[in-house]
Amino acid sequence: MAELENKVQDLSLKEKEVEKKDVPLGPDGKPLSKKALKKLEKEREKEKKRKEREAREAAERAQREANEVDYAKDFYGVLPLNNSSKREGKVYTNISDISAAKDGEKVLIRARVYTSRLQGNKMCFFALRQKFSTVQGLVVVNKETISKQMVKFCGSIPLETIILVEGIVKKSPELIKSTTVQDVEIQISSVFVVSSVKKQLPFLVEDAARSEQQIKASEESAKEGDSKFVRVLLDTRLDNRVLDLRTPTNQAIFQIQAGICRAFRDYLLNSKFTEIHTPKMTGASSEGGSNVFSIKYFNSTGYLSQSPQLYKQMLIAADFDRVFEIGPVFRAEESNTYRHMTEFTGLDLEMAFDEHYHEVMGFIENLFLHIFRVLKTEYSEQVAIVRRQYPSEDFLIPDQAPLRFHFKEAIALLKGAGYRQQLEPGKEIPKEDEFRYVKDPDFEDLSTPEERVLGAIIREKHNTDFYVIDKYPASARPFYTMPDPEDPRYSNSYDFFMKGQEIMSGAQRIHDPELLVERMNALGVDPNGLKDYIDAFRLGCVPHAGGGIGLERVLMFYLNLPNIRLASAFPRDPKRLLP
Amino acid sequence: MAELENKVQDLSLKEKEVEKKDVPLGPDGKPLSKKALKKLEKEREKEKKRKEREAREAAERAQREANEVDYAKDFYGVLPLNNSSKREGKVYTNISDISAAKDGEKVLIRARVYTSRLQGNKMCFFALRQKFSTVQGLVVVNKETISKQMVKFCGSIPLETIILVEGIVKKSPELIKSTTVQDVEIQISSVFVVSSVKKQLPFLVEDAARSEQQIKASEESAKEGDSKFVRVLLDTRLDNRVLDLRTPTNQAIFQIQAGICRAFRDYLLNSKFTEIHTPKMTGASSEGGSNVFSIKYFNSTGYLSQSPQLYKQMLIAADFDRVFEIGPVFRAEESNTYRHMTEFTGLDLEMAFDEHYHEVMGFIENLFLHIFRVLKTEYSEQVAIVRRQYPSEDFLIPDQAPLRFHFKEAIALLKGAGYRQQLEPGKEIPKEDEFRYVKDPDFEDLSTPEERVLGAIIREKHNTDFYVIDKYPASARPFYTMPDPEDPRYSNSYDFFMKGQEIMSGAQRIHDPELLVERMNALGVDPNGLKDYIDAFRLGCVPHAGGGIGLERVLMFYLNLPNIRLASAFPRDPKRLLP
Repeated sequence: MAELENKVQDLSLKEKEVEKKDVPLGPDGKPLSKKALKKLEKEREKEKKRKEREAREAAERAQREANEVDYAKDFYGVLPLNNSSKREGKVYTNISDISAAKDGEKVLIRARVYTSRLQGNKMCFFALRQKFSTVQGLVVVNKETISKQMVKFCGSIPLETIILVEGIVKKSPELIKSTTVQDVEIQISSVFVVSSVKKQLPFLVEDAARSEQQIKASEESAKEGDSKFVRVLLDTRLDNRVLDLRTPTNQAIFQIQAGICRAFRDYLLNSKFTEIHTPKMTGASSEGGSNVFSIKYFNSTGYLSQSPQLYKQMLIAADFDRVFEIGPVFRAEESNTYRHMTEFTGLDLEMAFDEHYHEVMGFIENLFLHIFRVLKTEYSEQVAIVRRQYPSEDFLIPDQAPLRFHFKEAIALLKGAGYRQQLEPGKEIPKEDEFRYVKDPDFEDLSTPEERVLGAIIREKHNTDFYVIDKYPASARPFYTMPDPEDPRYSNSYDFFMKGQEIMSGAQRIHDPELLVERMNALGVDPNGLKDYIDAFRLGCVPHAGGGIGLERVLMFYLNLPNIRLASAFPRDPKRLLP
Repeated sequence: MAELENKVQDLSLKEKEVEKKDVPLGPDGKPLSKKALKKLEKEREKEKKRKEREAREAAERAQREANEVDYAKDFYGVLPLNNSSKREGKVYTNISDISAAKDGEKVLIRARVYTSRLQGNKMCFFALRQKFSTVQGLVVVNKETISKQMVKFCGSIPLETIILVEGIVKKSPELIKSTTVQDVEIQISSVFVVSSVKKQLPFLVEDAARSEQQIKASEESAKEGDSKFVRVLLDTRLDNRVLDLRTPTNQAIFQIQAGICRAFRDYLLNSKFTEIHTPKMTGASSEGGSNVFSIKYFNSTGYLSQSPQLYKQMLIAADFDRVFEIGPVFRAEESNTYRHMTEFTGLDLEMAFDEHYHEVMGFIENLFLHIFRVLKTEYSEQVAIVRRQYPSEDFLIPDQAPLRFHFKEAIALLKGAGYRQQLEPGKEIPKEDEFRYVKDPDFEDLSTPEERVLGAIIREKHNTDFYVIDKYPASARPFYTMPDPEDPRYSNSYDFFMKGQEIMSGAQRIHDPELLVERMNALGVDPNGLKDYIDAFRLGCVPHAGGGIGLERVLMFYLNLPNIRLASAFPRDPKRLLP
């Protein structure tokens, strides 16, 4: 009130100043006549009264508005920092649990402001978001509890702010298409900011959640000067990964990632496997080669594990019988492609068998079928959400046992399609056909383009996206791979494929120390660096086989993600160690 | 047969050589008389005939033995290397599945030779081992299928060899005390070596499985020159970890380790937690300090993650709500103690809460109770096996809700027991009482000896090995810990204890960027190195709390293992990067 009165006085003061400065002259520039002067005086008096009335009215309006603030002021605002100073036991509701079944119920929801829209000065619409669930919230002026000020406050809350709203669930007369909860909205009665956004958003979560198709369509239909959807580029996403991970797509992707781990583990635990944790820092670089990161280990040098291969085999030699590990795997490959990372999550298993490594191969086939079934039955909602941004076809699983192809059969299929032709010196080959020619058509390892072609042929012919190629050439596999007993140019090894892309490599391992050393020497691996490993077999070891699955690869191929970095929460590549 | 004949000829040849060399002299050194010579000639003739007869008999015996080999030769021997050349579908039996219920059944068992004993030349006893199960096997000469040669062969098989035996399960008239299967033995009909031991055993698995108590008792009762049990020292074990891990104790320890992970995960997955995988290579050293390993990352430098702390919090800021991770944690601490390793397995969780961090503290209490219950009900066999080597008392769990102590209460308990006395300059304190005195009795962090004393007091008073201390002094906790709202000298942080030893540290975290930077500055942590982390909170974040559990510590304390290295398959310390 004091402030308001000051304002009114202020206005009168200015009025007086005008009077003093005023030296009344007529249109001809000369002082006015008495009559004219009187008339002017009258007009001034009238004007003054009008202004006084206006000021009074403004004061009264301000007074009214101040009163209006009062009536809603307990229902909105910014909460103090939660440092656990009280515990009232209020129950929060999850957006995913809200539906028409809750019509009329009072709910308390803590959520992000996904979108907001002020309609006039009496109404504010929110889309409130939790993970991949959204619901519409509505704040409407009324005479008792919701003031225009409150609505204005709601409209000014920045996107991504976390708010705590109370309201009543109300059936919506028509479906709300913009949110995941479509049959009801929340009639909000209070709005409090729990955590503010204190930084310019580098992009909107809504923009980051749009499909390339939607963006392209907006570009094609837009006329000059029209606004088009913003494209959030990969590096921008990864530089601001915390914001990017909030998209419904990413929330779904990482629930599916966790689902793959869960299905993998459940199957193995039910099959008497023991979970192990092998060291990631080692004194010897496991599989040799240059793809190893070195660590300063006090006064010496260590290496980061390139896979748990040697350790899981040593645990087989230690009678663990069936082991698995989910853990990080490090590869110092300077490859900047859509499918390479320097750190990824390995799902590794190793298993003793009785007579034949096909026991293990068959076991792993069933393991994958279990994973695919779990994804299909328990993660269909998440898969559907991802498909809105990254469309993909249903993943085809064979009805019967998975298909297996001998490496020779795979080569025959490729030859039949015009691939794996003999490269001859001097022969001219058009650039676009280059990958159809190889030096050694029967024994060269499959290239990535060949794997894809093969995937397409097999899908077409056998209606499956999942199959196994057995008996890879010995020359294409690591030193610890058991040679094929019938033809030592091949080996007891297999790759598993999803949609023509390799997701798991495995084999029977050599459990005899002499043969192992022989193979190491043949392939130029120094046995001295792997003494503990070889010694494990000198202490006696059962025949065994296993494999290593790249978690992010399975996720990427299953969901048809365009880049493996999208399958990792905080991906690492030669150029990225942050965030 | 040809070989045998050669042998007989050989013997006659040697006989002739002896004759030639012989220049007969009498006891006086002079040539013998004719009579004496004739006598000698006769004796020689006699001797020759005797030797010929012996040779003939030896040949006949060898012939008989060769025939005996024949009748048993299909029932023993060394199998060729299993390179999966055939698959017969034979069914192997697990020793743990064998009992009197299988009396009379034929079984095929692949197992290690744990002990073996030849009795005369007609009988051989085996203890066959699989993980922590053992059964007695018996090979007895008969006239049709088991020859003395076969028994001899059995007796010559080195310990730890993997053999495949076929036999009949037979009820034993009396309990066999030396094996885990006590009511039956296997009457073996065939024995084949699957995998040989090709190295001198550095120690016997049996010796490595003995308790310190047994060894001491043998030392005390032994008279001079008597054999005592061999003590296998820790470094010998760890240098030959594959062999050491074969002890029943270790087989049990690592099943329990896997059980802790399973119980931890099951509880969290059932509580809507998402499993995450955060990077272990980072561009910024997470919690500062010197305890970080550096990596050569292409042309720059990276660091190994000291904990998933910052990443799990960033995922809370990314709306993941409830996350957990099981993964390696790296600490470059040059501590060579029984309870430090440079790499261990972290069981980490982080969780948004509604109103108060005690929601999270209570949740974690229940998580631990779940883990303890699973260990008690599902791993009692394994725990009993470990106790044979490392005795321990039952772990006491509170009947009701776990006990919680304010840090002040813990200090009061210590003071009551004569600890936490004021250290005053100049005051002389006897060496043995030094740890009763501290500079700041009310706010100094608990030392390890104090924690143990406290554990004993609480066990004595409240009959529990599991409890929580809440509200640690702010000065004793990392920069990201939320101060206590009532007294900023304390903080919203807690430690969980087992038998007086800390197994988990946790707290409410600061989710406000300004307060976070303020605390960083106060504690001398450079905010520039943690920009992505601080930015996560600038994008808005819910209040949250969590904790990190050391898997090996829980295992060690639960089982009363004397050294943390025994709780890790391949432990790492400042001096050990191998095997």
